[in-house]
Amino acid sequence: MSFENISSSKSFGGWHKQFTHQSGALNCEMRFAIYLPPQAFAGEKVPVLYWLSGLTCTDENFMQKAGAHRAAAELGIAIVAPDTSPRGEAVADDPGYDLGTGAGFYVNATQAPWNRHYQMYDYVCLELPKLIEEMFPVSRKRAISGHSMGGHGALVLGLRNPEVYTSISAFAPISNPMNCPWGAKALETYLGPDRATWEQYDASRLMRNADVQIPALVDQGDADQFLAEQLMPEALLAAAREKNYPLTLNMREGYDHSYYFIASFIEDHLRFHAAHLNK
Amino acid sequence: MSFENISSSKSFGGWHKQFTHQSGALNCEMRFAIYLPPQAFAGEKVPVLYWLSGLTCTDENFMQKAGAHRAAAELGIAIVAPDTSPRGEAVADDPGYDLGTGAGFYVNATQAPWNRHYQMYDYVCLELPKLIEEMFPVSRKRAISGHSMGGHGALVLGLRNPEVYTSISAFAPISNPMNCPWGAKALETYLGPDRATWEQYDASRLMRNADVQIPALVDQGDADQFLAEQLMPEALLAAAREKNYPLTLNMREGYDHSYYFIASFIEDHLRFHAAHLNK
Repeated sequence: MSFENISSSKSFGGWHKQFTHQSGALNCEMRFAIYLPPQAFAGEKVPVLYWLSGLTCTDENFMQKAGAHRAAAELGIAIVAPDTSPRGEAVADDPGYDLGTGAGFYVNATQAPWNRHYQMYDYVCLELPKLIEEMFPVSRKRAISGHSMGGHGALVLGLRNPEVYTSISAFAPISNPMNCPWGAKALETYLGPDRATWEQYDASRLMRNADVQIPALVDQGDADQFLAEQLMPEALLAAAREKNYPLTLNMREGYDHSYYFIASFIEDHLRFHAAHLNK
Repeated sequence: MSFENISSSKSFGGWHKQFTHQSGALNCEMRFAIYLPPQAFAGEKVPVLYWLSGLTCTDENFMQKAGAHRAAAELGIAIVAPDTSPRGEAVADDPGYDLGTGAGFYVNATQAPWNRHYQMYDYVCLELPKLIEEMFPVSRKRAISGHSMGGHGALVLGLRNPEVYTSISAFAPISNPMNCPWGAKALETYLGPDRATWEQYDASRLMRNADVQIPALVDQGDADQFLAEQLMPEALLAAAREKNYPLTLNMREGYDHSYYFIASFIEDHLRFHAAHLNK
């Protein structure tokens, strides 16, 4: 098995590390980052928060810009940040920033040529946790969070797998992808025109049908340029109200779609997950 | 006067903003970033920490990666991050990453063709504070900090202008540029071969000759790849001991030269400056 440590930096008493490995699910080499808090080096198996990034991102954006290590070090939580799509010369791509590499949308593609590599749902939900739990001093307690396209991914994976994650959170998620331009373009491309197949990747639809409910926290800036057209938190809120789903949705006055917004509230999200991971 | 606000993002209840303006000192258009804490929007004139970045950086690296806004918001300190050199097609440059654009070394160049634009010492010490204090709700209390080449800049500006700044700090500064490859290359290029002219830009030399002493804090990772050849904190420490200069130098076990190191200790530096700015 190829598994290579390509960078290591001490951070808040723990370590930020990047690795490459050959992914079976994605059929290509992938890079991910992990933050291991100090507790992981003191004989403790720490729980893991999986972070899913947004369009155009890699494993680096969150680790460099969210300022999350401080609270993760205090709370004893590892953070794993995968890439946002398969990568490499053999991987199908599209000139748009919102399709192809950097835009995997956390689905298992069924349509050629995308289905050969674009299996991000299985990669994030199945393959990566198995690898993380084999290679690092972590427990099997997992939570999931993400931003924008990654907020969509976190909600979808969490809502469909309540036995895998203790808690879900998201910043400015694409909440109703079936009904927004980014989502409809990606779902049609990766899954084909039958909208019935899209429903398994639509957080608002999934929340309305969730039988097992795990706690969910969403933060959304009201000055977010993508709010009305792409993100649609009102659809998620309506689903939560209809099902009495334990969703907290905070609208944040004046905040935009950037990592400055995420940095401002990431500590709240880490404390939210810590409360559920440590139960 | 050209003065344009090119971005604004709310962050920790305050605002991160980028501006462009025409610099008289540098004879070109420049960009800088400012973080204004919430207190600045509540009728308070807040003190300013000037942050000088390292080789290859712009105004963005520190603002995006240091995680400094949280503590700045709590303490009520504005942060101003200038660019690291003049910019533009008319500006002399060099193919090396350690000379020319991105590598102004915070000196006033005397040698052609560099002297036409490379006047970063005057820009940071004189022109920029004047502009900041005219355009924003800030007091005239100023502190200075920086990283690597910017740590050198912070030490040099602070040691030469103890009436301008309340306190100096640095992360992994180039402490003795006359005697390291990065420093000697830049000083010879910008100032010419007469080493006597270099002394006014050498922190260890300046500390040894400082008549007025303001407090200085330096953090240095002991796993920093540039430590032995380029940074030479031992020269600064020797100068401080000789003159009984109020320097605290913390060697940090396992930390490297990256922004993960800066993020880990920036709160300490902000609290250090706050104690002196609020006197």
